[in-house]
Amino acid sequence: SPAFLSVMAQDNLSLVLHAKGDLRLENRPIPEPGPNEVLLQMHSVGICGSDVHYWQNGRIGDFVLKKPMVLGHEASGRVAKVGSEVKHLKVGDRVAIEPGVPREMDEFFKTGRYNLSPTIFFCATPPDDGNLCRYYTHSANFCYKLPDNVTFEEGALIEPLSVGIHACRRAGVTLGSTVFVCGAGPIGLVCLLAAKAMGASQVVISDLSEERLLMAKELGADFLLTVKRGDGAQQLAKSVEEMLGTQPHITIECTGVESCIQTAIYATRSGGVVVLVGLGSELATVPLINAAVREVDIRGVFRYCNTWPMAIAMLASGKVNVKPLVTHRFPLEQAVQAFETTRQGLGIKVMLKCDKNDQNP
Amino acid sequence: SPAFLSVMAQDNLSLVLHAKGDLRLENRPIPEPGPNEVLLQMHSVGICGSDVHYWQNGRIGDFVLKKPMVLGHEASGRVAKVGSEVKHLKVGDRVAIEPGVPREMDEFFKTGRYNLSPTIFFCATPPDDGNLCRYYTHSANFCYKLPDNVTFEEGALIEPLSVGIHACRRAGVTLGSTVFVCGAGPIGLVCLLAAKAMGASQVVISDLSEERLLMAKELGADFLLTVKRGDGAQQLAKSVEEMLGTQPHITIECTGVESCIQTAIYATRSGGVVVLVGLGSELATVPLINAAVREVDIRGVFRYCNTWPMAIAMLASGKVNVKPLVTHRFPLEQAVQAFETTRQGLGIKVMLKCDKNDQNP
Amino acid sequence: SPAFLSVMAQDNLSLVLHAKGDLRLENRPIPEPGPNEVLLQMHSVGICGSDVHYWQNGRIGDFVLKKPMVLGHEASGRVAKVGSEVKHLKVGDRVAIEPGVPREMDEFFKTGRYNLSPTIFFCATPPDDGNLCRYYTHSANFCYKLPDNVTFEEGALIEPLSVGIHACRRAGVTLGSTVFVCGAGPIGLVCLLAAKAMGASQVVISDLSEERLLMAKELGADFLLTVKRGDGAQQLAKSVEEMLGTQPHITIECTGVESCIQTAIYATRSGGVVVLVGLGSELATVPLINAAVREVDIRGVFRYCNTWPMAIAMLASGKVNVKPLVTHRFPLEQAVQAFETTRQGLGIKVMLKCDKNDQNP
Amino acid sequence: SPAFLSVMAQDNLSLVLHAKGDLRLENRPIPEPGPNEVLLQMHSVGICGSDVHYWQNGRIGDFVLKKPMVLGHEASGRVAKVGSEVKHLKVGDRVAIEPGVPREMDEFFKTGRYNLSPTIFFCATPPDDGNLCRYYTHSANFCYKLPDNVTFEEGALIEPLSVGIHACRRAGVTLGSTVFVCGAGPIGLVCLLAAKAMGASQVVISDLSEERLLMAKELGADFLLTVKRGDGAQQLAKSVEEMLGTQPHITIECTGVESCIQTAIYATRSGGVVVLVGLGSELATVPLINAAVREVDIRGVFRYCNTWPMAIAMLASGKVNVKPLVTHRFPLEQAVQAFETTRQGLGIKVMLKCDKNDQNP
Repeated sequence: SPAFLSVMAQDNLSLVLHAKGDLRLENRPIPEPGPNEVLLQMHSVGICGSDVHYWQNGRIGDFVLKKPMVLGHEASGRVAKVGSEVKHLKVGDRVAIEPGVPREMDEFFKTGRYNLSPTIFFCATPPDDGNLCRYYTHSANFCYKLPDNVTFEEGALIEPLSVGIHACRRAGVTLGSTVFVCGAGPIGLVCLLAAKAMGASQVVISDLSEERLLMAKELGADFLLTVKRGDGAQQLAKSVEEMLGTQPHITIECTGVESCIQTAIYATRSGGVVVLVGLGSELATVPLINAAVREVDIRGVFRYCNTWPMAIAMLASGKVNVKPLVTHRFPLEQAVQAFETTRQGLGIKVMLKCDKNDQNP
Repeated sequence: SPAFLSVMAQDNLSLVLHAKGDLRLENRPIPEPGPNEVLLQMHSVGICGSDVHYWQNGRIGDFVLKKPMVLGHEASGRVAKVGSEVKHLKVGDRVAIEPGVPREMDEFFKTGRYNLSPTIFFCATPPDDGNLCRYYTHSANFCYKLPDNVTFEEGALIEPLSVGIHACRRAGVTLGSTVFVCGAGPIGLVCLLAAKAMGASQVVISDLSEERLLMAKELGADFLLTVKRGDGAQQLAKSVEEMLGTQPHITIECTGVESCIQTAIYATRSGGVVVLVGLGSELATVPLINAAVREVDIRGVFRYCNTWPMAIAMLASGKVNVKPLVTHRFPLEQAVQAFETTRQGLGIKVMLKCDKNDQNP
Repeated sequence: SPAFLSVMAQDNLSLVLHAKGDLRLENRPIPEPGPNEVLLQMHSVGICGSDVHYWQNGRIGDFVLKKPMVLGHEASGRVAKVGSEVKHLKVGDRVAIEPGVPREMDEFFKTGRYNLSPTIFFCATPPDDGNLCRYYTHSANFCYKLPDNVTFEEGALIEPLSVGIHACRRAGVTLGSTVFVCGAGPIGLVCLLAAKAMGASQVVISDLSEERLLMAKELGADFLLTVKRGDGAQQLAKSVEEMLGTQPHITIECTGVESCIQTAIYATRSGGVVVLVGLGSELATVPLINAAVREVDIRGVFRYCNTWPMAIAMLASGKVNVKPLVTHRFPLEQAVQAFETTRQGLGIKVMLKCDKNDQNP
Repeated sequence: SPAFLSVMAQDNLSLVLHAKGDLRLENRPIPEPGPNEVLLQMHSVGICGSDVHYWQNGRIGDFVLKKPMVLGHEASGRVAKVGSEVKHLKVGDRVAIEPGVPREMDEFFKTGRYNLSPTIFFCATPPDDGNLCRYYTHSANFCYKLPDNVTFEEGALIEPLSVGIHACRRAGVTLGSTVFVCGAGPIGLVCLLAAKAMGASQVVISDLSEERLLMAKELGADFLLTVKRGDGAQQLAKSVEEMLGTQPHITIECTGVESCIQTAIYATRSGGVVVLVGLGSELATVPLINAAVREVDIRGVFRYCNTWPMAIAMLASGKVNVKPLVTHRFPLEQAVQAFETTRQGLGIKVMLKCDKNDQNP
């Protein structure tokens, strides 16, 4: 729309991580979309723990920051230009952005597991730039049009929600599943939401923090398990069983802490599944035999694939409510302050508003 | 409890089908449970279309009534006696009854598909007696204890709900599935409920009757498609696509009508699934090629297996509400009148109340 | 290698179908590969029933020849040039060609079922050119390097073998499966080979022709069922059961004939699968109820996806022997005579040799 | 047959473990079969590592010998008497014995995973008697008739073969799978056989012992990896990749050694599966994160379920050859010497011959 195009701006303020601890807001050129890309005017971008981790540490595992990189990968925006080959999007469309875009038609992509493709592009994973900026180009095939009744912020929250969906799908959550979620941080909460939406009858969620557990309660958790440092793994597993009246079919471990992984294994019913979402130290000492002889499968998740369409469908139908997850909002200009808020562990999800003319949800 | 035991009665009024059209209320001896059985004081028993069909026709397919048979298989009751080997139930327990009990440890039972076992016992399928009576014995392994917050009528409704659960499970309904349900009778409605509970984002339901569609609307249908006799299969398929904005992943056909099966195939998205729940004539003329070259799978259902535990979990958690399905109630003494109500197609589910001292839901 | 490059020729003789019945050998320009393509010097191309069908009828279903089209899609060749972006292939590599190349990253491609993508490119399906020619360009991602111990002809035969693999995979053939294959033509035979390689314990194969059944015997069929026109579907189903001593878990229908689809349904064990590979008339009258109440799933196949790597692995390891399928060979210059051979139903697979300097298998 | 019945004997020589280290051959009464049981005249019983472990240690994990127990669970025999309810077997039938018989129709049995039922009967797991004796009664439903072309010893070997089948099935071995088997003892070898029969294209097998690897070679292994104590896990993983030219889809770990589990994880391709068959110490330190972020699933196996019918089918069809596994034979009277042979790790499988009148394979 002409009204929309007229606001097409001027600057491309971007949040760039130059090195460990060196986060800067700076202006970058507005990029041109390639034939299969769209130029997006960014609207809402959530801050993820991994963004903060790169800021604080300059690396996550083998991914090391070697040159300046724009942060941000939980994002939505509006199409400002379309590449010559793009057919399913037009200027003005509101879209959610899937940050991972496979670069090669390798065996993983061909078999529907493109998240495992080793050469995948991924926003804000070095060396690939993210989208915490005013203007950003992305593969049109990985931009998904939002229905009118889904807000930009809901669109941005599809990214963390996708982690929950992928974890629950890998776990096989289905009608009547009983689920234990270890950890009530942002990822634990989206796992809770996804599990409920997929038919789980009862979800126990655990955390050290009472405050987090209360948020989980609001989002639909059936039982809250307050954990204290030093609690024994087998004792906690017993508590989960007592709360549910049975062992859970599925445990989704979101902390990465060794003792929690142990609890996850002990807690899960024979024939069930433990999904590892949280990442901890490289080696973990766990009761593998206990899992093996009870055929409790241990499955990891790496990001997600094929989740945006179903997430949009769920948000549009009102079956999943992610809005309460947003506890803080900052304009892009205050990005560093926003990152500091996340670093301090305040609230759940901090949202950056990238469009000067529209700071609504 | 002694109070409970004291009411243990006297008569065993039973609804017996003697021959096609010959339905009688008569007194039968109270049976003794075998070592692995329980004696149940029946509380609520729903009337199924198949009960009426046996009454009107004396047969369904190859199942032919050859001797008098007690009707009824959608049932719940209270444990009045336990057999010597029974461990998980005690006198006074309120239970829902799974009417199919495999008799042999054959390949179907061993692989978890006991509903396919050719020698299975099944309530009110000739020659096996059902449970429309005051007292009835059943395998304790196929009686499931009801939590306090699940009523007897909900317990009885697990049987039809199980058809919906099994159909949706065979269909692979999951988060974000779009589903088309053909037919809004009792079975169509439980498929709707099950699909929603398993994460379907949008459900279209079709029927000839506006009244039935309105009930579907109340139970959560997103779109209603009023069908007229003579509507073309491909045209109806197009209407479904227009309503959803896309072809449904899954179609659940609950009418058995040939033209509806055709519609089901045309309507379903490539790579999707058509589940056949309704039963029609032995041979059907259908666009098999259309299904085949688009890899639309065609799957039938025969009753259900392994649904009671998950159904109870869903009812207890309040995630599925089957209560609105019950539109009529009659005391067991008025069973013939109740059957006449179902025969005339009035309301949705007619419930018979078998306990003289407790006619509550 | 220079020796190889020196033979790079001159002409690009191609077999072009101009219209129904109008098949011509003509010279076309040698194409240039795009950035993600390779130029292939074609070596061996098998003739498929569909090639002959286009020649005789000018169409298959909705696919109608509207302009001249090069035939051929069962092919292998040698890389003559690589596009600028191609990394995994180099000049001189011997490759098998997967003829279907998805054009869009749509939901089907993203979920690993790219064969269902409605906009897929496919060799010799109008309007896309095939590869019955001297030189041909193809997406490098869909060219698979052949190990030294796999011949070009085996490479070309991966295409029909893929139909068998995909059918058996959709059927769920696994260790100890008993399988009934209807029809012992080229497709029935590759289904037989694939079923055996996937662990089937016993395969019954049926056909009208004793000669074809003898070939099936040589390729590993355990039981041969000679069919006569007019045989009853239920009687044939009974014969299959008698041969195996049990009903087959899986039936793979390769004829498309209505009575054979009926036989397939009656023959298959409860809980089993019928796969429809053969294509017949648009509407078919079949005992759907019989399938539905025994939970016999009916699944179609559309070509294949993700089969080349496993097919190459099986050929390289010697576990599958497709060589006996080739019964006739013609140089490309005699393509019309070769087509005539296939049209007359002589032998099994006719192979065209496209490389003037190497007519070996 | 009368001839058969006439040999029905007299004594019931049995190999009884009285306590750790206290193994005795003694005569026990010939038991009477219950209504659903058969009395079996035992023919061939293999010695398993677990039998020897009970002998040497008096326990395995939580299973502790508290009273005398007959050893043996890899067995076949001939029906000598049938219980009153038994229909599918008759006197004289040759059968293979599945040693695990579920006692309760619990959730595991109902869903087809009866091996996980906590109350299952299992031969020679305390306190349940095994079948290293002359006469033994067993549930008829878990005795499987052997075809004429399958020997008693093959029948007895179905038990260890079942471990391989269940492991490969849990792993999802299919056409073209590449598989790494850690450990070439009896269990590693049956995993190799099962993998090959299910369509694996290439199998690498590793062991400390050259001799064992040579046996693996004879049984069909494609690559042999000789391991030395102290080899690094990541280095061994690299060697596996180099041998195959790619990372294996599946690793089957049969040693239980911590460093081997580590190797298994590092070696397996992203999106693949590690199956844990070998049992080691309760806690293991492993690179769980490496597995999780590459979505390499870790699955255990507990015995097996639903394997006998498919194993018999494979043996009858000649597709799997287990005969070379038997390296030693002893008459039941020399059972202690036979156990000593297994304890010393000589050969692969030691077979005890329980029928005085027929010591043939």
